[in-house]
Amino acid sequence: MIDPNAIDSDCCRSSLDKKKVYTSKFNELFLSNDVPKNITVFDTTLRDGEQTPGVALTCDDKIRIAKALDELGVNVIEVGFPASSQGEKDAAKAIMNLGLNSKVCGLARSVKSDIDAVADCGLNYVHTFIATSDSHLKYKLKMTQDEVLERAVSAVEYAKSRGLEVEFSCEDATRTSLEFLKKMHIAVQEAGVNRINVPDTVGTISPIAMEYLIRELKTVTKVPISVHCHDDFGMAVANTLSAVRGGAEQIHATINGMGERAGNASLEEAVLALMAFYNAETTINTKMIGPTCKLVSRLFGYPIPANKAIVGKNAFAHESGIHVHGVLNDPSTYEAFGPELVGVERNIVLGKHSGTHSIKEKLNEYGVVLDDERIAQVVDKIKDLADSGKEIDDAELVALASHFAEQHESKHINLDEFAVFTGVKTTPTAVVTLDINGEKRTGTSIGIGPVDAAINAIKTVMGNVFRLEEYCLNAITGGSDSLCEVMVKISKDGKGKAVSVGKGVGSDIVQTSVDATMEALDRLYSRLE
Amino acid sequence: MIDPNAIDSDCCRSSLDKKKVYTSKFNELFLSNDVPKNITVFDTTLRDGEQTPGVALTCDDKIRIAKALDELGVNVIEVGFPASSQGEKDAAKAIMNLGLNSKVCGLARSVKSDIDAVADCGLNYVHTFIATSDSHLKYKLKMTQDEVLERAVSAVEYAKSRGLEVEFSCEDATRTSLEFLKKMHIAVQEAGVNRINVPDTVGTISPIAMEYLIRELKTVTKVPISVHCHDDFGMAVANTLSAVRGGAEQIHATINGMGERAGNASLEEAVLALMAFYNAETTINTKMIGPTCKLVSRLFGYPIPANKAIVGKNAFAHESGIHVHGVLNDPSTYEAFGPELVGVERNIVLGKHSGTHSIKEKLNEYGVVLDDERIAQVVDKIKDLADSGKEIDDAELVALASHFAEQHESKHINLDEFAVFTGVKTTPTAVVTLDINGEKRTGTSIGIGPVDAAINAIKTVMGNVFRLEEYCLNAITGGSDSLCEVMVKISKDGKGKAVSVGKGVGSDIVQTSVDATMEALDRLYSRLE
Repeated sequence: MIDPNAIDSDCCRSSLDKKKVYTSKFNELFLSNDVPKNITVFDTTLRDGEQTPGVALTCDDKIRIAKALDELGVNVIEVGFPASSQGEKDAAKAIMNLGLNSKVCGLARSVKSDIDAVADCGLNYVHTFIATSDSHLKYKLKMTQDEVLERAVSAVEYAKSRGLEVEFSCEDATRTSLEFLKKMHIAVQEAGVNRINVPDTVGTISPIAMEYLIRELKTVTKVPISVHCHDDFGMAVANTLSAVRGGAEQIHATINGMGERAGNASLEEAVLALMAFYNAETTINTKMIGPTCKLVSRLFGYPIPANKAIVGKNAFAHESGIHVHGVLNDPSTYEAFGPELVGVERNIVLGKHSGTHSIKEKLNEYGVVLDDERIAQVVDKIKDLADSGKEIDDAELVALASHFAEQHESKHINLDEFAVFTGVKTTPTAVVTLDINGEKRTGTSIGIGPVDAAINAIKTVMGNVFRLEEYCLNAITGGSDSLCEVMVKISKDGKGKAVSVGKGVGSDIVQTSVDATMEALDRLYSRLE
Repeated sequence: MIDPNAIDSDCCRSSLDKKKVYTSKFNELFLSNDVPKNITVFDTTLRDGEQTPGVALTCDDKIRIAKALDELGVNVIEVGFPASSQGEKDAAKAIMNLGLNSKVCGLARSVKSDIDAVADCGLNYVHTFIATSDSHLKYKLKMTQDEVLERAVSAVEYAKSRGLEVEFSCEDATRTSLEFLKKMHIAVQEAGVNRINVPDTVGTISPIAMEYLIRELKTVTKVPISVHCHDDFGMAVANTLSAVRGGAEQIHATINGMGERAGNASLEEAVLALMAFYNAETTINTKMIGPTCKLVSRLFGYPIPANKAIVGKNAFAHESGIHVHGVLNDPSTYEAFGPELVGVERNIVLGKHSGTHSIKEKLNEYGVVLDDERIAQVVDKIKDLADSGKEIDDAELVALASHFAEQHESKHINLDEFAVFTGVKTTPTAVVTLDINGEKRTGTSIGIGPVDAAINAIKTVMGNVFRLEEYCLNAITGGSDSLCEVMVKISKDGKGKAVSVGKGVGSDIVQTSVDATMEALDRLYSRLE
């Protein structure tokens, strides 16, 4: 997943090359010396992130992610909650044994057995917590403030006695009174805590109030302050930045902003914003951000939203004429920094908002050169199609351009006959007859399922000259008779590699797959002549 | 999609009932009187939102969304960019003719023909703009500051002469010098502009700098100020709030935060945050937020990310034992407000982090009552399964609970024989033999595709006593031989409605669907005995 060769010599470890980042100059008015410049990153992807509903990582998954986080350069990896299950313990031990550069931390409630679980796994860093807000005291813990304080102090003392580095959190800190919070901070500090974290557990503080809160807590807190923000009002990253303005030296974050409910502060957004807005330095190797986010997305089973900042597939995508025109002249017009900084790619997309510039650029990529008049015809046609709700993919654009270039496209290959059968103890088998420029050819093949058998039979008829590059079936939910959409991408080697795409929509998945393959094949054949 | 009956008498139009919202008390320290309290919402879902790559709404789609936005209570609907295509003009006219409460606005570059296009569609509100940053002047417009200023003034004057209400934007304002920005604001104000918008076009300003910028612009701007934020650093919503602190009276936002690249400020997050953090009033009916977000997601073809604040399926979901325990006692422990406020639902999810409380609650929903010892066995088993990477759905939980309740589950129904064939000019046909408690029964059926035929044949054998409630095929991308996952939910009416779920994973989609159906059927049968 992560290619070490992708890290080149001018990679942006530790601080951003300001020449490569074009942000608002107004930010520079607020670069006060009070704002900490060296920020450590405490990654909780494997703990709070893994508490995302439905996520259940295996020990191997956790090891792969921990290795990726280490390569990314995070300072601390919170690997899980060892007391909660044997699997959590096994994963914690396995990750500790990897000998990573990052510190490896485990979560523990303020109870002896939870802290023991962390120490017994061989970890040397514990993140222990107890809730302090009135709501949590009353409805969850059923304890008084004094009892909570005593429990916290005992936990910190016990953790220290077991030789652990200790980070302590007042859970739901932002809904706790300032007076009690300060009392807690002073008490755990006296008990020997190494770092105190301030969690905005329910994501309910505003950025300006967060800055105030941290500044106030700094008046009594001598150890470094950490901050842990949730995104219930979309404020997680902004609150993380505000806390650093207030004096926090460490941020908690997760890859892709995963976590309980709306999730935590997204590591990739928080790190880039700290670097770009505050000139802060971190140990993050920004070029590993894209690959790490993709790995976590895959193992968590949560796709990266297309419009996710920094790493979404639209983050550096441009479709509208005005934007594409600007970006092709100079990317700084519509991008704060180039996608290579964070290990992702730019994407010029075609659609109803496309102008002449994007169409020309895209056709050039495919080696199709049209004069301005013809380009204008193609642009008009695309807008017409788009107004009717149709998306245009690259293969369709090339087909359209060929049409306007008066290279008439006709149907060279037609499906004449097709049947497939499958069942228990029966190898799925298909027979296909194609009409190729008037000549009929028949072929049969088996496959792992009926779709595979059918596509293999078409390949056989064509003499195995094409390769299936991609087969994508759109999710269908409803009855077993609802529609499905199939996209097939095929390729053929020759003078350069030719690629063609076909799409089909229908209720019979086998038939629809065959239709899509036939469409792709006919297009490929037409262009190759 | 939107049910008018869902709006009950205590709906939260205009302002939040503070009793229902439990946010950080520290926010209250910053409720200055300078912060505008009545905020208008300018929705740009159908313009900037629709510029999201790959989105192409039909005229009908636009009408449906415009109606939903009107019901939601937005003050202005920006319907598109009429000069760009005939479809855009048709949609603008059609929406104008709906006679909505919301104002209907069209986008126009600062050129006569664009403004004419807006006026000719019958709209009476135009949003016109020209870029002002050095980067845009040099690389995109190739114009001087003086030329840009003159063009802007002419555009505003011309728009006023055509009887339009005019909102003007300096595109890329946050990367423009303060001096030139002020000069532009003064000039368009003298030309008669009604409102000036400040776009953070590339999403590159920090919240504290945004507040400063708006405060500075207010010193020369007498008309209301609007703000338009992009999310490239995850700051769109925070910057929107900061702008309001600085004195902005209107916000631009989009449903689900759609828009160019990482998108715009999400309307649902910005509105809730303004209400919750600043006690601001808007005309938004919060209960329509959930349905509107779902409609836009569907018509845009962009799923709502699970961890999206306010409306994601995880926003009010709880899985980990600690959280579920708190929420079941009192939701305020881990929720700032109840999901009903924004027209969505709470969800208690089972998984590796589940504790006794969630399992008990979930089993009670299904009428299964177990003693504490047996609940503990179920919890252990779920953690074991989850540690190995398995997700547990409700039907599996019930099956597991039945097992521990010593209601032994045995296989009553087995698949003995199965075959299906399909092809061109061939009606998909299936034959199935089932072994039911040792007795063999055979049935045949046709279907719209091979999967449908196979499931119909099983129904026939069973005497059509069960109904297929849901069939869900997980998207597969890769070769035509890659794995697919099928979930089948079936039901049977009797003493109450019995529901059962089966899952299958395999490479042959027909075979896998049959396996999943058989699993669901066997479970249903076992429980009904």
